[in-house]
Amino acid sequence: MSNPFFSNLGPFYISEILKLLDTKSDIKEKHKVIDIMDLFNAKKDCITFFHSKKYNDIASNTKASFCITTKNLEEYLPNNCSAIIVDNVLVATSIITQKFYPNSIEDEYDKSAIDINNTQFKDKVQSGKNVLVGDNVKIGKNCLIGHNTIIERNVQIGDNCKIGSNTILRNSLIKNNVTILDNCVIGKKGFGFFPVKNKNQRYPHKGIVIINENCEIGCGSTIDRGSLSNTEIGKNTFLDNQIHIAHNVKIGENTILAGQVGIAGSSIIGNNVKIGGQAGISGHIKIGNNVEIGGGSGVIKDVPENSKVMGYPAKSIREFLKDNR
Amino acid sequence: MSNPFFSNLGPFYISEILKLLDTKSDIKEKHKVIDIMDLFNAKKDCITFFHSKKYNDIASNTKASFCITTKNLEEYLPNNCSAIIVDNVLVATSIITQKFYPNSIEDEYDKSAIDINNTQFKDKVQSGKNVLVGDNVKIGKNCLIGHNTIIERNVQIGDNCKIGSNTILRNSLIKNNVTILDNCVIGKKGFGFFPVKNKNQRYPHKGIVIINENCEIGCGSTIDRGSLSNTEIGKNTFLDNQIHIAHNVKIGENTILAGQVGIAGSSIIGNNVKIGGQAGISGHIKIGNNVEIGGGSGVIKDVPENSKVMGYPAKSIREFLKDNR
Amino acid sequence: MSNPFFSNLGPFYISEILKLLDTKSDIKEKHKVIDIMDLFNAKKDCITFFHSKKYNDIASNTKASFCITTKNLEEYLPNNCSAIIVDNVLVATSIITQKFYPNSIEDEYDKSAIDINNTQFKDKVQSGKNVLVGDNVKIGKNCLIGHNTIIERNVQIGDNCKIGSNTILRNSLIKNNVTILDNCVIGKKGFGFFPVKNKNQRYPHKGIVIINENCEIGCGSTIDRGSLSNTEIGKNTFLDNQIHIAHNVKIGENTILAGQVGIAGSSIIGNNVKIGGQAGISGHIKIGNNVEIGGGSGVIKDVPENSKVMGYPAKSIREFLKDNR
Repeated sequence: MSNPFFSNLGPFYISEILKLLDTKSDIKEKHKVIDIMDLFNAKKDCITFFHSKKYNDIASNTKASFCITTKNLEEYLPNNCSAIIVDNVLVATSIITQKFYPNSIEDEYDKSAIDINNTQFKDKVQSGKNVLVGDNVKIGKNCLIGHNTIIERNVQIGDNCKIGSNTILRNSLIKNNVTILDNCVIGKKGFGFFPVKNKNQRYPHKGIVIINENCEIGCGSTIDRGSLSNTEIGKNTFLDNQIHIAHNVKIGENTILAGQVGIAGSSIIGNNVKIGGQAGISGHIKIGNNVEIGGGSGVIKDVPENSKVMGYPAKSIREFLKDNR
Repeated sequence: MSNPFFSNLGPFYISEILKLLDTKSDIKEKHKVIDIMDLFNAKKDCITFFHSKKYNDIASNTKASFCITTKNLEEYLPNNCSAIIVDNVLVATSIITQKFYPNSIEDEYDKSAIDINNTQFKDKVQSGKNVLVGDNVKIGKNCLIGHNTIIERNVQIGDNCKIGSNTILRNSLIKNNVTILDNCVIGKKGFGFFPVKNKNQRYPHKGIVIINENCEIGCGSTIDRGSLSNTEIGKNTFLDNQIHIAHNVKIGENTILAGQVGIAGSSIIGNNVKIGGQAGISGHIKIGNNVEIGGGSGVIKDVPENSKVMGYPAKSIREFLKDNR
Repeated sequence: MSNPFFSNLGPFYISEILKLLDTKSDIKEKHKVIDIMDLFNAKKDCITFFHSKKYNDIASNTKASFCITTKNLEEYLPNNCSAIIVDNVLVATSIITQKFYPNSIEDEYDKSAIDINNTQFKDKVQSGKNVLVGDNVKIGKNCLIGHNTIIERNVQIGDNCKIGSNTILRNSLIKNNVTILDNCVIGKKGFGFFPVKNKNQRYPHKGIVIINENCEIGCGSTIDRGSLSNTEIGKNTFLDNQIHIAHNVKIGENTILAGQVGIAGSSIIGNNVKIGGQAGISGHIKIGNNVEIGGGSGVIKDVPENSKVMGYPAKSIREFLKDNR
C-alpha cells in the first residue's frame, strides 16, 4: 500500500540530487525525479539503488530512470536507467531518501501530542488518565486506550481496538478488533544504519507498521517500522510478551509467536506458523506456511512450508530429536 | 488458596450450561452447578473437563458431577460424573469458564483507577507523581510506590514493599518485603487461547499472581496470571531484568533467575534453583530442588533435583562439557 | 573515573568497622580507613577484600591497609596489609561497603523528582508532558526529553541528546549526541547480592553508568550500574531493542548489538564488535576487538580479537558451519 504518513518532498531535479553525493556521474539533462524506490517497485522518473550482484535480474528490468550503484554493477542496468556511480551505495541511498523523506530518519518524541481530553476524541474514545494524542491520528468506534499511553502522530486505529497502558504507537495502521497490551512500542524506526567510524549514519525509515484485524500483541513488545517497505502482521496473528519484530518483517495470518521471540529485519513468516518461546529468526529469511518452530530455536535459513524444525541452527525436528536422543 | 479477586457468578442450572454448548448430551435432571474446576480439584456439584488420555487416572477418580469430554474418553469417568460430549473440549471449557467468571477473560485498562491522592492511601503510602489505584486494592504499612505506576483493581500489597516506577499490577497478591522494580507488568492474562481460524478464542484466566515474602522482581519483567490455577513465586526468590513468567508457573523459594530467562506455561520450578541468563524452560516441565541450569540453556524435559544441566536441549553439565570440549 | 554521585561517608576508625563484622580479628591500632576499594585500586588507608585464590598475585601487591579475607588466604597478603578474617568475605564486604556508601544499596523511586516545568530546565530543555527531574541533574544544550520520562537524581546529560518517552535514568553520565529510545531503564542497581536463605543480602552498587558520545540505545533496554566499578558503553556504539547490559560490563567503541542481546556481569567487549540478535555473553568474559558473534550464540569463554564465532557454546564460525552442514 502507499504510505499515508511520510510525505514526499519531491520532485527534485537530478542535478540537485547529484550535488548531495560524492560522485563523478555527469548527467546533463534537466530531469525531475519524483521518488526513491527499490529496484522492483521503482517507476519511470524514479531513482533506485543497486548494491549487490544478487539483484542482477531485477536490476536489468528496472523501470527507474536513475540508479545509484557501483562501477562494476553499472553494466547490468537497462538503457532507460542512468547509473550514478558512488563508492558506498547504501550510504548514498540513505542521503537521497532523507532528501525526499526528511521526517523519516528520526524518532524524536512527538511534540504535537496533547491530552486526549483536549482533542476531538474526548467523547468518542474511552481512555485512561494521562493519554496523549498527536497530529494526524484517527481512532475508530468503540476503542479503549489505557493510562499513560501515547498515540503519536501518524496513527490510524480501527474499530473495537483495545490499547493497554504505558504503550507508545506512531506511524502505524491498526485495523479493527486489534488488542495491544501494556508497555509496547510500535512503529519506531528500525535498527537500520550504516556503520561509520565514530558517527554511524542513520538510514531513513519511511515504511510503517500495519497490524491487521483481530491481532493481539503482548506486553513489552517492540515492532519497528520498515525502511523502504512496511512491517506487517497478518490477520488474527497473536504475539505473546516481550517479542521483538524488526523492520520490514512480514508475518502472515493465524500465526502464533510465543514469549521473547525475535525476528530480525526483512524476514517473511507465512500463515498458520507456530513459533515457540525465545526462538530467533535471522534476517532476510523466508518461513513457509504451516511451519512449526520449536522453542529456543535459531533459524538461519529458509524453512519450506508444512515442516517442523527445532534446534540451533534449526533442522527438521526428526533430525533434532535423533541427534539429541 | 481460594481466589479473592474473580467472583463466581454461579451456581447455574446444568440446563443453562448445556444451552451454551454444541452437544447432544441430554441431561434431564434439574441440577445446580456451583463452579468449574480441574479434574483433581473439582468437588461434587462442580463441572470439570477431560481432554487427553494422559489424565485417565485422575479422571476416573474425579468428584465432579459433570465433565466436558469427548466420546472416546467418556468410559473413564466414574458413575458420579455425567459426561457432556463435545467436539472440542477446551473450547467448550473456555465458554463455560467464561459464564462463571466473565471478568476473567479480558485485560482492559482499569477504568476504576484514580490518582492515589484521591484515595484512602493518600497519607498512608509514600508515592511518586501520577500514581493510580483501582478498586479493591489493599496496601500495607511502610510501602513505596514509584512514579506513573498503576495499581489496578484486585491487588493486595503487604508491608514494607517497594514498587518501582512505570509498573502495572493487577489481580496479584504481593506479600511483605517484596521489591518490584520499574516497567514491569504483573498479573495480566496469560497467553492462553484456542487457535480458531480468523478469530482465536481467548481462554479465561481466573488465576492470580502470588509473590511471596522477600522476593525481588527486576525491571521490564512480565508475570502472567494463571488460567484455572495461580502463578506463584516462592519466598526470597530473586528475578533479574526482562524475565517472562507465563501463566500457571510455580517457582519455589530461594531461587534465582538471571536476566532474560523465560518460563513457559504451567512449569514448576523447585527451591534453591539457579537459572542462568537467557535460559528457557518449556511448558509443563518440572525442575527439582537445588537444580542449576546454565545460561542460554533450553530445557525441554524434567530435571531431577540436585542436578546441573546446560545446553539446548539441556543435558547434564558433565555431558555438555564433554561434548563441547 | 571517580564517582560523582555516591558520596563516601568515611573515614571510619577500623574499630568501628570491626564491630560490624563477626570476626575474631583483633586490630588494636587507632587507624582511620578512608575508603573501600578492590585489591588492585585500593590505596594506603583503604580496606579491600580477597575471596579467591585466583587473585593471589594481585593480593600480594595490594596497597590497602586492611583486607577482609579468610584464614586460608591470609598468608598471601603483604606486610602493609592487616587481614580481617571472616567466614564469608563477600557478605562482610557488602556490609562495609554499605557503611561507606549507604545510598548505593537500594533503588527506591526518587522522591526528589518534580515536574521539569518547576525546575531550572523549564526553558532550556525541550520536553514532553509529565517529565520529572530529580536532584543533582545537569542537562546540556539542545536536548529533547520525551513524555513521561523520569530523570532521577544523579544524572548528567551532555549536549544534543535525545531521550525518548517512558524512560527512566538515574546514576548515569550521558555524553554528547546520545540517543536513548523509549521504555528504557538506565542506571538501576545490578543483580548483585549474596544468596542467604529466606533473606538474600543485597550488595551495594556504587558504580554508575557511562554512555559515551554518539551512542544509541534501543527501546526497552536495561543497563545496570556497576557495583564497585562502572558500567560503560564506548563512543558510537549502537544497541537495538530489548537489550540487557548487566553491572560492571564495559563495551568498546563502534560496536553493534542487535535485538535482545544479553551481557552478564563484569564482561568486557572490545571495539568494532558485532553481536547478532539474542546472543548471550556469560559473566566475566573478555571479547576482543573486531569480533563478530553470530545471532543466538551463547559465549561462555573469552574470544580473541579479529575472530568470528557462532553457536552454543560459541566456537569459530568455520567449525560451526562444518559441524552443522
